Amino acid sequence: MVVESGTIDKIYCAFILGSTAVSMGTEVHMYFTFWGLQMLQKGEMEKARLPVEYQHMEESFWKKLEEMKYPTPYELLKSMKGSGLLHIYACTPTMEMFGVKKENLIPEVDKLVGAATFLDIAADADVSLFI
Amino acid sequence: MVVESGTIDKIYCAFILGSTAVSMGTEVHMYFTFWGLQMLQKGEMEKARLPVEYQHMEESFWKKLEEMKYPTPYELLKSMKGSGLLHIYACTPTMEMFGVKKENLIPEVDKLVGAATFLDIAADADVSLFI
Amino acid sequence: MVVESGTIDKIYCAFILGSTAVSMGTEVHMYFTFWGLQMLQKGEMEKARLPVEYQHMEESFWKKLEEMKYPTPYELLKSMKGSGLLHIYACTPTMEMFGVKKENLIPEVDKLVGAATFLDIAADADVSLFI
Repeated sequence: MVVESGTIDKIYCAFILGSTAVSMGTEVHMYFTFWGLQMLQKGEMEKARLPVEYQHMEESFWKKLEEMKYPTPYELLKSMKGSGLLHIYACTPTMEMFGVKKENLIPEVDKLVGAATFLDIAADADVSLFI
Repeated sequence: MVVESGTIDKIYCAFILGSTAVSMGTEVHMYFTFWGLQMLQKGEMEKARLPVEYQHMEESFWKKLEEMKYPTPYELLKSMKGSGLLHIYACTPTMEMFGVKKENLIPEVDKLVGAATFLDIAADADVSLFI
Repeated sequence: MVVESGTIDKIYCAFILGSTAVSMGTEVHMYFTFWGLQMLQKGEMEKARLPVEYQHMEESFWKKLEEMKYPTPYELLKSMKGSGLLHIYACTPTMEMFGVKKENLIPEVDKLVGAATFLDIAADADVSLFI
């Protein structure tokens, strides 16, 4: 799974699909690039918002999640990580393009890699998605 | 195929790919989530618009489609459905997050399911796309 | 690979994944539709910008790429094309919808085709992505 987007809807999609796969006993490989990579910086995932087209739904969206006591994206990520089945890759070309430093990434990141690693893994995967 | 987006360009992409697959005799499974799920509510698909980046092309886009007598997304969906090869799934977590009620969905929806059902189907599919 | 998007982040993602695949000796098939198809018109790829959500990062993004002497998208495309492993398809329904003429496309385009050709190729591919 490539996570390119950094809006909260796509992050939730990626993490809900990932959590579900993990709960089914499947290995999940997430390769974070561009805006997705930004989300791996400490404190950034909490700032993710809806896309501009849907800003008017922002308030009711968060209120509803709170009512449902829905886990935050970072809670979902840590829970997946706890299973031992989630592998998190940070895209090195993106890190260079945006000046992202390794020490600012959340500790759950497994490896800093380029696109070749992703393609190798995707070629063997049952399902590959670009989110 | 996961349909996450609710802008008209992505809806057309998903439905044109779907229609083509159906015309080739292929089974098509569409899992609607987030903004895609919103489109399954009665009357919502007709309101889909271009992404904000392309608002200036909105008027000429619709005019061109009219000139071409291009089918609307809902017409494409009903035509695919008529083939018996299209399966439409509505994402239950999204329905809860956005307070979408079953009775407001278009009658073409086959099942209300979670992500596990999608992953099971995707694992056996020839092509899986996240749109 | 379907390239539907026309923002610079997605174009770079598609082309970096493509370049990497080509450098690994893999055949790459790119099917350009909607905003991606617009990018195949002469002079359009150079005008690609970040999505509206990230406009505030536009200036520093381009400055950084210049400092890194990073190849432009068109340079990446020509370099992939030079390998003989890249196949570029322009989506004919999109060309009709947007009134795009064949003679305005860059010369690297191999074929003008519909969605059926893409699905045939995707069904045999190791990895299929919708970008």
